[in-house]
Amino acid sequence: MQSFLQLVSLFEERFSKELPFPAQPENLYEPCRYFLSLGGKRIRPVLCLMGNELFGDIHEDAFHAAKAVELFHNFTLIHDDIMDKAPLRRGNQTVHERNGLTAGILCGDVMNIFAYDELAKVASHLPLLMRVFNKTAMEVCEGQQLDMDFEARNDVSLEEYIHMISLKTSVLLACSLKMGALIGGSTEGNADKLYRFGKNMGLAFQLQDDYLDAFGTTEKVGKQTGGDILANKKTFLLIKALENGNAEQKEKINVLLAAQPEDKVAQMLQLFRDTKADVACRAAVQHYSDLAFESLEDVAVLNKRKEPLRELANYLLQREN
Amino acid sequence: MQSFLQLVSLFEERFSKELPFPAQPENLYEPCRYFLSLGGKRIRPVLCLMGNELFGDIHEDAFHAAKAVELFHNFTLIHDDIMDKAPLRRGNQTVHERNGLTAGILCGDVMNIFAYDELAKVASHLPLLMRVFNKTAMEVCEGQQLDMDFEARNDVSLEEYIHMISLKTSVLLACSLKMGALIGGSTEGNADKLYRFGKNMGLAFQLQDDYLDAFGTTEKVGKQTGGDILANKKTFLLIKALENGNAEQKEKINVLLAAQPEDKVAQMLQLFRDTKADVACRAAVQHYSDLAFESLEDVAVLNKRKEPLRELANYLLQREN
Repeated sequence: MQSFLQLVSLFEERFSKELPFPAQPENLYEPCRYFLSLGGKRIRPVLCLMGNELFGDIHEDAFHAAKAVELFHNFTLIHDDIMDKAPLRRGNQTVHERNGLTAGILCGDVMNIFAYDELAKVASHLPLLMRVFNKTAMEVCEGQQLDMDFEARNDVSLEEYIHMISLKTSVLLACSLKMGALIGGSTEGNADKLYRFGKNMGLAFQLQDDYLDAFGTTEKVGKQTGGDILANKKTFLLIKALENGNAEQKEKINVLLAAQPEDKVAQMLQLFRDTKADVACRAAVQHYSDLAFESLEDVAVLNKRKEPLRELANYLLQREN
Repeated sequence: MQSFLQLVSLFEERFSKELPFPAQPENLYEPCRYFLSLGGKRIRPVLCLMGNELFGDIHEDAFHAAKAVELFHNFTLIHDDIMDKAPLRRGNQTVHERNGLTAGILCGDVMNIFAYDELAKVASHLPLLMRVFNKTAMEVCEGQQLDMDFEARNDVSLEEYIHMISLKTSVLLACSLKMGALIGGSTEGNADKLYRFGKNMGLAFQLQDDYLDAFGTTEKVGKQTGGDILANKKTFLLIKALENGNAEQKEKINVLLAAQPEDKVAQMLQLFRDTKADVACRAAVQHYSDLAFESLEDVAVLNKRKEPLRELANYLLQREN
């Protein structure tokens, strides 16, 4: 069994060596190669490989599925960047910013097709894997639509928010694990437990991200904090503060949302603390994290084989143990 | 065996009854339903059914493949309309015009995923069908990219133009036939002959479209003619006229391209005639049409079974016989 970092470099080497894009048309495939060269943590493909290695040596089919989820994930990033009007991704120009809207749309489209082409190379279980993958792919689109819808709404409930981030982020992590497990010969029962592990881990990770963007230190988070507050982003913290706050606190929040005072971040953080939204957010991270580890415990394989998955979850959730 | 019109209504009924989109999120799936309700000739799915019926009764799998190609085709139209900044499609608002850029992108993305989900329902030959479909899907994206590239170029050769329209339009017609045939138990040899029939028929159809947009009558074509000329579109006629013309004729064409005189269409038509681009275009339609019918002759099934395909080709190519 291999550690998270070993699997990252194993995947990265094959992925970059075996990129499927032809040379022509240059304006279509060069931006695809560019975007994939920007890297990323490769968490989804590694989850697929780990889900597979839980049941034995890594099967060649797991590499196909791992590449498919990574290509699909990057396709969604390219299109999300257009919808979010984002100029930068991983510190570099986004595709639509660098090559124009047409390239952004088409390069995403063709990368999605290459994801399916990679998946179609699996030698066994193709119909089953397609069902799992397609359901997830639809959900990711639905999550992105809900995210866009929520931008225009002021009455998003916590339940709706959790549902949205679950679709937008968590299900693809869960699907990656499940596909790896199914390729490894897992029963559907064990594969579904791994799916729940991945989904709850994804939720915990996203909520932690909300928390750290507000309360983390720049050194620890690796980016300027307070960005979500400045962008009026509807995070767990903001929704919970509006839910918990008394009339005066709600009013203060709404005034802050409508303005950009110099100390907006500091004022909002104080309101998050006053309404105990910070405590609720940490509790939610703990809740989904607990659910994730419970599901992992239930997977019927030798405890020792689960070590890399625990290691990865602890790394993502910045837990010390 | 069923006629073209019988198969259109057979497909249309099932397609509209069995639309796969769920109710929510409304902003994602309502535009999908809207766009598909605008209709279209349903030529691709009917070609798939015809390719299948050539070898026996229509198999349930052929309906899945037929729906898949129609969903895929509509996905590409939705995204093409964004790239072309088109406000109208079939006389109605395009998705991005009606629901915004985000809806246009996401609704296309999810429709593509539903196309794959439909294809994955086939009970047999899934890996083979996926290979055929994926190759075509990539080519369609490549064709669209080349079309965009050509807009910015003034040195597009006829060969490049034919290659572009082949990718953008013809290969999906060819792929539809081939998938239907493979589902029907066709040998790869016969399926490839049908593929060539579809590809050459598609080329003939597209070149005829170029011709009719310039020289057709409004009654016969069903739309205002001369649109390509007014939009300076690089069609077979324009490329051929620049290739055939003497220095004076080329100069006249370039002057016309740079201006919008009231009689631009009439002047350009005269130049197409003077340079014999019109004759060359008709000859090219005939050439690809002949190639198509030759390939159809070579398919090893009873001649009588090919009648619906001949009928459809004659209808598309507006031939009298």
